[in-house]
Amino acid sequence: MYTAQLKAHLQAVEQALPVYLPQIDRPWETVADGMHYACTDGGKRLRPVLLLEFCRLCGGDIKAALPFACAIEMIHAYSLVHDDMPCMDNSPLRRGKPAVHKQYGEDMALLVGDGLLTYAFETILSHAATVPADRVLSATLELAQSAGVEGMVGGQTIDLQSEGHTITIEQLNTLQSLKTGALLKAACVMGAILGGASAQQKDAAEMFGKELGRAFQIVDDILDATADAATLGKPVGADAAAEKSTYVTLLGLDEARKTAQKHTEAALSALDIFGDDAASLRQLAQTLQDRCY
Amino acid sequence: MYTAQLKAHLQAVEQALPVYLPQIDRPWETVADGMHYACTDGGKRLRPVLLLEFCRLCGGDIKAALPFACAIEMIHAYSLVHDDMPCMDNSPLRRGKPAVHKQYGEDMALLVGDGLLTYAFETILSHAATVPADRVLSATLELAQSAGVEGMVGGQTIDLQSEGHTITIEQLNTLQSLKTGALLKAACVMGAILGGASAQQKDAAEMFGKELGRAFQIVDDILDATADAATLGKPVGADAAAEKSTYVTLLGLDEARKTAQKHTEAALSALDIFGDDAASLRQLAQTLQDRCY
Repeated sequence: MYTAQLKAHLQAVEQALPVYLPQIDRPWETVADGMHYACTDGGKRLRPVLLLEFCRLCGGDIKAALPFACAIEMIHAYSLVHDDMPCMDNSPLRRGKPAVHKQYGEDMALLVGDGLLTYAFETILSHAATVPADRVLSATLELAQSAGVEGMVGGQTIDLQSEGHTITIEQLNTLQSLKTGALLKAACVMGAILGGASAQQKDAAEMFGKELGRAFQIVDDILDATADAATLGKPVGADAAAEKSTYVTLLGLDEARKTAQKHTEAALSALDIFGDDAASLRQLAQTLQDRCY
Repeated sequence: MYTAQLKAHLQAVEQALPVYLPQIDRPWETVADGMHYACTDGGKRLRPVLLLEFCRLCGGDIKAALPFACAIEMIHAYSLVHDDMPCMDNSPLRRGKPAVHKQYGEDMALLVGDGLLTYAFETILSHAATVPADRVLSATLELAQSAGVEGMVGGQTIDLQSEGHTITIEQLNTLQSLKTGALLKAACVMGAILGGASAQQKDAAEMFGKELGRAFQIVDDILDATADAATLGKPVGADAAAEKSTYVTLLGLDEARKTAQKHTEAALSALDIFGDDAASLRQLAQTLQDRCY
């Protein structure tokens, strides 16, 4: 899935993240420990990798963008911690290990999430000295908007509001573009901003993030409906069991595959402006698409 | 408690807050509605009032500081929403009306808190154009640090970690300076930064915030132990019932009063640098102190 270029970004993030996260041996040890635990899950680090790659593609300094990359991963991690809590999805496991509320208790899970969300902004603001201030402000606003009520929090709200109702494909599109799409798109746009992108480059990053995010969600729904647990590495059929409207229940399997393909193609064509230099992102988009066949 | 000057700040915050908060008639209506609900509680708005007054004292533009003032109130409101939740203090009421989780459900309370915390940063970043970028970055970092793991979240953690243990006065000082002191101090320092304070003015703001915050907490403990419910407007004896270590249980009533007085005097002397112009803050500090006799 990742080329050598993207693997280098992944490695940079894996090294930097525990360094940026708060020190553990302090009086608030438990929450700091939980923050490290929540950020160590063997995930793909898709958002920070996209951020760093768009920064590179737009000619920016990857090192200077690292605090932003780690911040977006902290936001992603906080959202998983709070989502897993008993009052939300009540998921005891996350990537095969106990969810934060199982490991540290519910009260600490609440604080670990709050701590990560706040620390994302702190990480950016305390390490942004080498980036022009206008780029810092604009990239950080992008992050806040995508994480907040007009993004992830809003998407979660619509999801809760629609529980027990059948929703339309338009409503599912809105829900998905907020709940998971916004942060993926923000990763691409933040990278472009930090790299000093032209208006066209920034638009291309936004389009790529938007289309990749949509394709990604449709493929996820297809995998949930078709793959066996061994291939997927997590329980399958969870959506059907929860009677959730998904791209598969609303479109059918064939149409869902075609729609995913259409969004992947749109993502690929958004990369044209970057020429051959975007080979890594092309391979990433194609690999994600190929998972659903 | 508030002079005409501080009442004008309070009024400015009351007017601006619902305008800065997200529109309600959107697809994520429930969380937006909950965010407004959580920010409408008839509170004293002490943090934003302090922020605006220090901005004024340092010669800054109060209007330009309003988004920051509203942001710190959003952070304060988020902390109350999450604190009241069943997995934390399990408080069904907040200022005589149902807590957010009672009114909107636990899942929405989690999102309302997350939404407010994120929106605080969004509010600052999307309305900061008239403030020099270095002041925006520095004031926002101050806010993030005071709210996060080295501030409010850290203080909450120490509080949870020390449940069921007797703690020392030093530990209580650390706990209190993080849990409630940090955000009060940040309000003063942010106001000074936004007002373009000199180094001495900024130090004075920090000292005032720190000493006022300590005096405030000690007076709160004294009132919890001595006042009747009618005077206090909330149930009394809650600390004793929870077997919590407080300034009264650790110092005794007389010594607690003396210690509060000492911190109020230190807060007052920090204001010397501002001369007569700090009359409103002097009256505020003295009124808070007088409550414990």
